[in-house]
Amino acid sequence: MSKNSNKKFVEAITAIDEDFAKWYTDIVKKAELIDYSTVKGCMIIRPYGYAIWENIQKYLDNRIKETGHENVYMPMFIPESLLQKEKDHVEGFSPEVAYVTRAGGEDLAERLIVRPTSETLFCEHYAKIIQSYNDLPKKYNQWCSVVRWEKTTRPFLRTSEFLWQEGHTAHATAEEAEKETIDMLNVYADMLEEYLAIPVLKGQKTEKEKFAGAKATYTIESLMHDGKALQSGTSHNFGDGFARAFNIRYSDKNSKLQYVHQTSWGVTTRLIGAIIMVHGDDSGLVLPPKVAPIQAVIVPIAQHKEGVLDKANELKNNLSSVVRVKLDASDKMPGWKFNEYEMKGIPVRIEIGPKDIENNQAVLVRRDTRAKEVVNLNDLKDRVLAVLDEIHNSLYEKALKNREERTFVAKTMEELKAIAENKSGFIKAMWCGERECEEKIKEVAGLTSRCIPFEQEELDTNCVCCGKKAEKMVYWGKAY
Amino acid sequence: MSKNSNKKFVEAITAIDEDFAKWYTDIVKKAELIDYSTVKGCMIIRPYGYAIWENIQKYLDNRIKETGHENVYMPMFIPESLLQKEKDHVEGFSPEVAYVTRAGGEDLAERLIVRPTSETLFCEHYAKIIQSYNDLPKKYNQWCSVVRWEKTTRPFLRTSEFLWQEGHTAHATAEEAEKETIDMLNVYADMLEEYLAIPVLKGQKTEKEKFAGAKATYTIESLMHDGKALQSGTSHNFGDGFARAFNIRYSDKNSKLQYVHQTSWGVTTRLIGAIIMVHGDDSGLVLPPKVAPIQAVIVPIAQHKEGVLDKANELKNNLSSVVRVKLDASDKMPGWKFNEYEMKGIPVRIEIGPKDIENNQAVLVRRDTRAKEVVNLNDLKDRVLAVLDEIHNSLYEKALKNREERTFVAKTMEELKAIAENKSGFIKAMWCGERECEEKIKEVAGLTSRCIPFEQEELDTNCVCCGKKAEKMVYWGKAY
Repeated sequence: MSKNSNKKFVEAITAIDEDFAKWYTDIVKKAELIDYSTVKGCMIIRPYGYAIWENIQKYLDNRIKETGHENVYMPMFIPESLLQKEKDHVEGFSPEVAYVTRAGGEDLAERLIVRPTSETLFCEHYAKIIQSYNDLPKKYNQWCSVVRWEKTTRPFLRTSEFLWQEGHTAHATAEEAEKETIDMLNVYADMLEEYLAIPVLKGQKTEKEKFAGAKATYTIESLMHDGKALQSGTSHNFGDGFARAFNIRYSDKNSKLQYVHQTSWGVTTRLIGAIIMVHGDDSGLVLPPKVAPIQAVIVPIAQHKEGVLDKANELKNNLSSVVRVKLDASDKMPGWKFNEYEMKGIPVRIEIGPKDIENNQAVLVRRDTRAKEVVNLNDLKDRVLAVLDEIHNSLYEKALKNREERTFVAKTMEELKAIAENKSGFIKAMWCGERECEEKIKEVAGLTSRCIPFEQEELDTNCVCCGKKAEKMVYWGKAY
Repeated sequence: MSKNSNKKFVEAITAIDEDFAKWYTDIVKKAELIDYSTVKGCMIIRPYGYAIWENIQKYLDNRIKETGHENVYMPMFIPESLLQKEKDHVEGFSPEVAYVTRAGGEDLAERLIVRPTSETLFCEHYAKIIQSYNDLPKKYNQWCSVVRWEKTTRPFLRTSEFLWQEGHTAHATAEEAEKETIDMLNVYADMLEEYLAIPVLKGQKTEKEKFAGAKATYTIESLMHDGKALQSGTSHNFGDGFARAFNIRYSDKNSKLQYVHQTSWGVTTRLIGAIIMVHGDDSGLVLPPKVAPIQAVIVPIAQHKEGVLDKANELKNNLSSVVRVKLDASDKMPGWKFNEYEMKGIPVRIEIGPKDIENNQAVLVRRDTRAKEVVNLNDLKDRVLAVLDEIHNSLYEKALKNREERTFVAKTMEELKAIAENKSGFIKAMWCGERECEEKIKEVAGLTSRCIPFEQEELDTNCVCCGKKAEKMVYWGKAY
C-alpha cells in the first residue's frame, strides 16, 4: 500500500502539448489540489490547493482593506422575489440557480435561491442603512461561496459552487462609482501581474458580454498556455439601475433625495486554474513564488550519513525567517522527492549532502528552468530570495511572450476565420459596435469578444465584419 | 437626516437587569453588529460585527495551524443518501435540514442537503485518500457557513445560517483520537479565557446531550451575565463509528486493515453572542481588548482650536504601532462620540484638548470601569498597553466572580427546584448516570445537564434525583 502511494508521483502526466485538457485534469489531481466528490459539479479543495487560495485571499484582502473597504457577511439565501427586483439581473441568473424548497420539516412558502451573487441582498441592506450623504460611500466586500448550476464542469474553471470575493459599493456620484470600478479592476490587474506573474489585458466588455444588470463591465483577460483566453476578474458599474429598483436614496447637502450609484467586482478560485494553465509544464505545476505555499523545499541527500539532517535542519531554520520553507526528511528516495515537488510546482529546491557540507555549499535548482547552481551556504539566504525574484520575473516574461506570439491581427473576415481555424490566441480586429457583427463573428469563426482594451490601436478604419466605419479595436478569442 | 443619524446612539438602550433579552437585541442593532434581512432566520453581519469574527478567526486559525492542521474546502451540498450513511447522525440532523430540490432549470434526481455539518463529506473523502498508516493522521479544518433550520432565532446565538470552523481528523489509534479531542477542547478553552476574557468550565456531555454520532462529546460552558449557560465550543470523539459506516480503513505496519478513529470540533459566530452577554453593560457593548477591532479611540476636545487635530494625529500615529487605534476627527460633538464608542465597547478612550496639550498630557478613560486618569504624553504608549491588559484581567475576574456567585449546590430535588425557581446560574449536583434522572430534572426543574466537569467534587454520595449511589457531579443550568 505504502509503495503504491510512493509511486503515484512517478507516473507521468499527459504531455502539455499533446492534450491540454487532460494535462490540466492530471495536474489538479496529481498535485493534490482538488478531489472530486459525489456532489455533481462541486469539488473538494485539498490542503495544497486551499493554501494557494489562502495566499490569494491574504494578498487581496489587504489590498481591499487598504483601499477603504470593510468585510461583511450576507445570508447565503435570497428569497425568489428579491432576486426578481432587477429585471436584467434575474434574467441573467435564473437559468443557473439552485432552489431550496423545503427546510425544517416544512415546504417553504417562498422558494429560496442559493446566492449566485449577492447584489440584491446588498441593495436591500443599503436601502435600509443609507439615508444621508454622510452615509456615503459604503464600500463593502464579502468572502464566501456561491452557486451557479453548470452542466459541464472543470475544476477551478467552471464548477457549480465556487469560492470568491464580491465587493459591493454605493456612491453619491456617477463619477465616484466609475472611479471605484476602474480602481478595483486595477487592484485585480496588479494582483495578477505582480503576485501571480500573469500578464493581463484590461478593457471593457461589450453590451452582449456585460454582467446582468450592469451599465458597464470591465474585465482583465489573460491568455493560457494553449492560446485560450480566461476572464480573470470583472468590475461592474451599475449606474443607478439597482438603486432605482431597490429605492436606495440619500438626501444630499440641499436635502434633496438622490439615487446612489453602485459597483460590484469579484475574483474567484478560477485564478488557481489560471496559475496552472499559464505557468505549468510537462512535469506538473509551476507556482509563481509569491503565491506558493512552500517557496523552497530542502531535500537531504544520503540523509542517513552523520550530520546531513542536522545541517538540513539548520538551513531550514535559517531560511524560515525569509521564505516559506519545507524540509522533507522522510525516508523516501531523493528522486521520488524531486518528482513530487516538481509536480507540486515548488519554485526552488535545495539539495544538501555530505559532499556539499564538506564544501559549505548547497545545490539550488529552479523549478521553472531546471537551472542548477552551487551556492555557498553563507550566501544561501540572499541567493534564495534573489532566485525567487528571478523566477517571478521570468515566469511573467515567458507568459507575456506566449501572449505576444499568440496575438494576431485580422482586417477581413477571411483573415479572422483563417486565424481562428489554424491558430489559437487573441485576435485583434476593428469593430463597428453592432451586436449583429459580434454575433456573426461568433457564428462564423467561433470567437467571442474578450474586451475592448483601454489601450486602443487603429488597425484599420472599418469593421472587420460589416466593413462600416469602426472606432473600436476588440480582442477576440476562444475562452474558458 | 444627518441630525437623526447623529442622534441614534444617544437613545438609551434597555437596562441590562430590566429585560436582558431586549437589552441584547438593542445592543446587536445599536452597536451595528448585525442587521436583519428578509431571509427568515438569517442575519447580516455588519462590518463591526464581522471585524470581531475576523479577529477570532485570525487567533484560532493560527492555533489550528500551529497544532498541525490544514485548511480545506468541502462542497456546501450533501447528497441525501450520503447524510444517511451514519444512522445516529442523520437522526440528529434531519429535522433541521434545508433541501435543494431544483437546480439549473431541472428537478434534481436526488435531493441535496445544505450542509448542517460536514462529517459525511470528510468521511467520504478520507475513505478515498487514506490507505496506509503513512497517510495518518489526517488533520483537516474548514471555515464555512452551515445551515440548521430554526423556528425561533436570535442574532449570533441561534440562526438558521451561521459561520463556524469545523475540524475533522482521522487517526490510527483510539488513544490518539481521544488526545486530539481533548487538545482541541483546550485550544478553545484557552481562546475563551486568554483572548475573550471568558472563564469556562470544561467537561463531558452526557449521553443525552452528546453530538449525533459521537462516542463522546466534550464541551466548554460559560455563564452569561443573566445566569444562563452558553455552550461555547464542542469537541467530539467518534471512535470508529463513522469509519465503519464509511469504510475508512488503513493498512497498518503488519499490512492488516484497521478502521481509523475520528474526531470533529467546532466553534461558531455564537462566540460573539457570548462576548456581548458576558461583558456588556447598560451603556452597550464592552469588548475584551484582544479581540476589539478598535482598541483605543482618540476624541479631540475643542478640535477647531489650533494644534488640537495635529496633536491628535500625532498620538494616533504614535499609538498605531502598538494598538489598533482610531481618531474620530468628525465634526460631531465630543459627547456624541463618547456615547457612540461606549456603545461600541471600545476598551480605551483618549481625550485630548488645548489644556491637555499645554500640560503635555491626555485623559485616558476605561470603558469597563469608566475610571479616568491623566497620563503624561511621554508615557501614553506604555500606559495604554498596560490599561488594555488591566481591562482584560478585570473583565475576566468580573465574569469569574459572576459565575462563582451564581454557582449553587443542590443535594435534594427540593433544593434543586428551589434554586431553579428563585435563582439563575449553574447548579452543581450529584448524578447516578441514568438518562431517566436527567429527563426528570428537565421536567421538574427545567434544567439541562451542561457538563460532567473534568474537575469533579464529591458533594454527596447519592444522585440528587433518585437517591442511588452517584459518582459524578454534574453542572445543571438553563441554557441559550
